Amino acid sequence: MASKGKVAVIGSGLVGQNWAMIFASVGYSVQLYDVSEDKISGALGKIKETLKTYSDKGILRGNLDWEKQSQLITGTLDLGECLKDAFYVQECVFEDIALKQKVFSDIDSLVSESTIMASSTSRIPPSVIFEKCKNRSNGLIVHPINPPYFIPLVEIIKSPWTSEEVTLKARTLMDEVGQKPVVANKEVLGFIVNRIQFAIFAECYRLIEDKVISPEDVETVMSEGLGMRYAFLGPWETAHLNAAGVEDYFKKFGPGVVDVLKTFGPNPTSLDGQAAQDIIEAINRKVPLGQLEERRKWRDNMLIALSQVKRQS
Amino acid sequence: MASKGKVAVIGSGLVGQNWAMIFASVGYSVQLYDVSEDKISGALGKIKETLKTYSDKGILRGNLDWEKQSQLITGTLDLGECLKDAFYVQECVFEDIALKQKVFSDIDSLVSESTIMASSTSRIPPSVIFEKCKNRSNGLIVHPINPPYFIPLVEIIKSPWTSEEVTLKARTLMDEVGQKPVVANKEVLGFIVNRIQFAIFAECYRLIEDKVISPEDVETVMSEGLGMRYAFLGPWETAHLNAAGVEDYFKKFGPGVVDVLKTFGPNPTSLDGQAAQDIIEAINRKVPLGQLEERRKWRDNMLIALSQVKRQS
Repeated sequence: MASKGKVAVIGSGLVGQNWAMIFASVGYSVQLYDVSEDKISGALGKIKETLKTYSDKGILRGNLDWEKQSQLITGTLDLGECLKDAFYVQECVFEDIALKQKVFSDIDSLVSESTIMASSTSRIPPSVIFEKCKNRSNGLIVHPINPPYFIPLVEIIKSPWTSEEVTLKARTLMDEVGQKPVVANKEVLGFIVNRIQFAIFAECYRLIEDKVISPEDVETVMSEGLGMRYAFLGPWETAHLNAAGVEDYFKKFGPGVVDVLKTFGPNPTSLDGQAAQDIIEAINRKVPLGQLEERRKWRDNMLIALSQVKRQS
Repeated sequence: MASKGKVAVIGSGLVGQNWAMIFASVGYSVQLYDVSEDKISGALGKIKETLKTYSDKGILRGNLDWEKQSQLITGTLDLGECLKDAFYVQECVFEDIALKQKVFSDIDSLVSESTIMASSTSRIPPSVIFEKCKNRSNGLIVHPINPPYFIPLVEIIKSPWTSEEVTLKARTLMDEVGQKPVVANKEVLGFIVNRIQFAIFAECYRLIEDKVISPEDVETVMSEGLGMRYAFLGPWETAHLNAAGVEDYFKKFGPGVVDVLKTFGPNPTSLDGQAAQDIIEAINRKVPLGQLEERRKWRDNMLIALSQVKRQS
């Protein structure tokens, strides 16, 4: 069937499957590459089943019916075939530096000079991945958040060589497929999502270490309080609405914020002390390891329901 | 009508009205105190209207119908009458140290030795508020999050003198009325919610100051990514589900977290630099000051929808 253009997805695991469904949802044809027939056929079967389930539940993305979306997604064991005519490549192999470098070295030798090369890595710096590529100005990180079909954020991280044009094209493509892109103009360790996540870890770890609050209660502070706002509002708009605007907030409360920040201890230099033990015990008690998979399903169902609430707003 | 006991709510503004509705939802009788007949009758009218609206929308809390809940709430201009027979006092006057001290000095002179005295303050340390009270072992902070009827978190902050028994009773009462209490065992500046919020502010402010990311994109990172998870999961359970448990997470990613934390700059020493200007401009563009009230209504509607999703889980 007719498509808007072709996207190559390298790696057919859960992240690759999600990317394939997201691109197909707006009419791109997607070819999935992997190293074994089993993986490819497994992934295509899983995608078909998932799209049908989403359709039945009324949570399918895009305007095409699930069968048309499914037909847009094919697989191959031939990297050259996968990349042929693709204007955009989304890599989602394991988080291993040498593997990512090898994969992009291969891709780089096969693609045209205009093909955008994106990695889904959550933490390997783009300069490390793309340094050796002859088309390194076309390379960048496009990192999705799990589960990408229902959490729209993607962080785009530029390497020192990534062109403005490629960055803008990647951002526009992400908007078009219904994700919510943000761009880091500089390479920073941890990217953006994890830096903010780790800032939270640091203060929560200190509060537990100092016996101010229990690990269980830290969880509640986020999941039954702060986090409920952050499902809809960023940190500054939260402040904006809690005062007569964020300018008023800074004026009235800025000095108080700074006073509190002055009382912060140094960041933890390891996460293996008594606080870590206390956290492990508390969280294992709440969700025993044998129930992880069940709890992940619950999380995904909650996120699906939340994304429906947000789409209807 | 018969009630389970009496709660005194001091101050009939929005927070006081929310507290009144929360206590009445499980059958406590509530007497609201304020300094003018206008304020009291205004608050009682608003409460009645709100309870009816919530009932019509199917979001009323508790098992009693809205009229019964409304009948449980009365008002008075007489502090002594308000406190008479109350086993628990929830103060919600303006955030002013001298005013809170005066109010609790008056309350302290009128209540029995067993009455729990709670302040709704978001930032005044409990030692400052309760130091001079003869019943200071009965005093503590019980800080709700806006809007309390739909965000269940309350943070309980002990002063150096608060008894274990009073802390436990306050925690149990909050559980009983359907809030989600957490306890800070020590007085810390900013309490818990704001310390975590300010840790987020600090890193986001730095990222904007360093031109890594725009203020608009920082908002998106939270509201379309991280924050969606935090609506249901605390920081450690998020890590638990993103690895084979949080112990596995600490083992595999702990050193990486620490490496990223090492690259954090110092905390901002003021919130009035160029980054603050950039934030103010971006957020005012997104939500002009004239639309603040409308946006707050949108926020509350989103939170209501989210709380329904969470209750059904």
